[in-house]
Amino acid sequence: MALIVKKFGGSSVANAERVNNVARIVTDEYKKGNNVVVVVSAQGDTTDDLIDKAKEINPDASKREMDMLLSAGEQISISLLAMAIEKLGFPVVSLLGWQAGFQTNSNYTVARIKKIESERLRAELARRNIVVVAGFQGINKYDDVTTLGRGGSDTSAVAIAATLKADLCQIYTDVDGVYTADPRKVKTAVKMDEITYSEMLELASLGAQVLNSRSVEMAKKYNVELEVRSSLEPQKPGTIVKETVKMEKMLIRGVACDKNVSRISIVGLSDHPGTAFKLFNALGQAKINVDIILQSVGRDGTKDITFTVSQDQCKDAMAAVEKMEDVLKYSKVVHDETVAKVSIVGTGMETHPGVAAKMFEALYDANINIQMISTSEIKISVLIDVEDADRAVTAVHNAFIN
Amino acid sequence: MALIVKKFGGSSVANAERVNNVARIVTDEYKKGNNVVVVVSAQGDTTDDLIDKAKEINPDASKREMDMLLSAGEQISISLLAMAIEKLGFPVVSLLGWQAGFQTNSNYTVARIKKIESERLRAELARRNIVVVAGFQGINKYDDVTTLGRGGSDTSAVAIAATLKADLCQIYTDVDGVYTADPRKVKTAVKMDEITYSEMLELASLGAQVLNSRSVEMAKKYNVELEVRSSLEPQKPGTIVKETVKMEKMLIRGVACDKNVSRISIVGLSDHPGTAFKLFNALGQAKINVDIILQSVGRDGTKDITFTVSQDQCKDAMAAVEKMEDVLKYSKVVHDETVAKVSIVGTGMETHPGVAAKMFEALYDANINIQMISTSEIKISVLIDVEDADRAVTAVHNAFIN
Repeated sequence: MALIVKKFGGSSVANAERVNNVARIVTDEYKKGNNVVVVVSAQGDTTDDLIDKAKEINPDASKREMDMLLSAGEQISISLLAMAIEKLGFPVVSLLGWQAGFQTNSNYTVARIKKIESERLRAELARRNIVVVAGFQGINKYDDVTTLGRGGSDTSAVAIAATLKADLCQIYTDVDGVYTADPRKVKTAVKMDEITYSEMLELASLGAQVLNSRSVEMAKKYNVELEVRSSLEPQKPGTIVKETVKMEKMLIRGVACDKNVSRISIVGLSDHPGTAFKLFNALGQAKINVDIILQSVGRDGTKDITFTVSQDQCKDAMAAVEKMEDVLKYSKVVHDETVAKVSIVGTGMETHPGVAAKMFEALYDANINIQMISTSEIKISVLIDVEDADRAVTAVHNAFIN
Repeated sequence: MALIVKKFGGSSVANAERVNNVARIVTDEYKKGNNVVVVVSAQGDTTDDLIDKAKEINPDASKREMDMLLSAGEQISISLLAMAIEKLGFPVVSLLGWQAGFQTNSNYTVARIKKIESERLRAELARRNIVVVAGFQGINKYDDVTTLGRGGSDTSAVAIAATLKADLCQIYTDVDGVYTADPRKVKTAVKMDEITYSEMLELASLGAQVLNSRSVEMAKKYNVELEVRSSLEPQKPGTIVKETVKMEKMLIRGVACDKNVSRISIVGLSDHPGTAFKLFNALGQAKINVDIILQSVGRDGTKDITFTVSQDQCKDAMAAVEKMEDVLKYSKVVHDETVAKVSIVGTGMETHPGVAAKMFEALYDANINIQMISTSEIKISVLIDVEDADRAVTAVHNAFIN
């Protein structure tokens, strides 16, 4: 008997018909004799609807209360899915984050899982119940509800798979696997059978919205085998994410595009040692994840620092920078949300020089201006105008993959 | 410094404007230097919407999963109210049933509070936080979410007031107090300044939808002073419910009408000792609250038993009766949902003979047929055709009060 963790996102449980579809996928697995834990997100637009309700009342609501509000979304979806499974005649129990033992730190809205107290999960599986768990949520040491932030349900699923040493963690989504580019935008995109954690990690953190990067990190750390599959075509094999994959000829594994980016530029910083440290330390304390950083020398002995953050953290980042004005002594700070990050990823590029040049050439040929560049061993990212983003992805994809 | 518990129903928090209104009422109390605990129900139609979602997926969903689903409703309203209070600049924290320490038994959908572990509530009040608590919900000994059933938020509020020995428990509703009849239906209805627990209990259990009867019972038991007030006209004094009230000339205190009634008749029962015991024992085990009971001798040495239950329990009651067919040996069982119960209540009637006769005369004059009669020391109820209900209330009210 295997233990399979299955995760279904909000669109997979958006209405009664889809909930029933998920119930069939889950019970088909159970009928094979396997134990099944199902992690679900809030239904379709529930989270956005709840955010709208909150904004109407208080646009600056505390993060604690936002988490209290948003966690109601998964509560609705787990109970509805459990009811659909009951209707098919299978034993099932739904569990909220705290009931499933999710202990997190206290960073409301972006909490991190500290551990899973798995007694209840194990007891329910021992009774041969199908266990439906609310993704995205947990509680902190004060017994207050926390949420894990964007893509948190993926992380919940992987954390359960790691804790229970599951045989496989399947992430069901509305695409049937991981493609070399977004197949809705790039017609020539190719589905991959397998991909390494490292490659998936770069793709995930770069805005390929298939898998959340924290969940891939965790899967890598605990060696949880992941599979990305389609909830609408459940019989179709997906893409397996694991430590090593068979060699393929492709130099790069994918092209990703992230439009959830803001660029913040601090202009005319006095050129003293420790300026960058003080700036990024302050941003770190404000829990802001900085992505690309560029430092340049200004005209008059001053320097400029430009960095990118996700759009939802832009306001907090600006506030943190403005609070540091006395310490940093800059002439102005500006932000721009009309940018996008386009990236190529592939373990192959480590051993193949000229990959960056080929990418920049493709963008040059498409007449697209590069604002910032960032590289790692297995990826190259460029920041460009958001209006050029879709064209850039196609141009780069065609240069490498076809 | 006083401790005030305020409870707001679903219509009082139905939209952003009303949530803000409640936030003002609550913070005005806090500004007087008082400690405030606020208990809220789910917003407006949330509970009905959730029930519709459940029915679409599984009309026979387990009660455990129904409670998991429905308890999301208050989670939304407490966090929104807390956000509105934050916006007014006051310290506030929202708590779910389990966080506020509500321990219940395991009768899902109609659970009873066993105790409130009040450490968290007391700690938050000691920090001078306004505490917003989700009404209607708790957890059982398995850490599973339970709900308290119809009017459960009133009970939650009174239970907190009793546990914390609050100075006053105010139930805010869309009427400004307790009237001698439903003021929307009977133009001549009069608001009362005070009413006894016993009178309120009879009115509450008879379908005057101002206060839930379990909450009044609990208030009586723990001597919690209740006040029924309007959330829309918060400056207007309401009706105080307490142990003894000043004498008034009114013979009866109110006329109530309950349309949430089903009549079940078991016809042709074999006339053996223990039949009634077996029947009502079975109904009790099925957690069905039976109200009026009538037993009559049938034509051929058999007997008939007729009783009433709330409409939402009718299906379960019919099932329980049908399961007992072999034991009870009856010829048929029928149910009728086109009935209503009209009642008069008043401690005065104990010492005034002729009250029943006056009520029956008023109904006779209005040409309304009485199907069943039930009396207690301080109330008289009649079961009539639901079509006659509104006319009956007016006729009886006019006979006694004007």
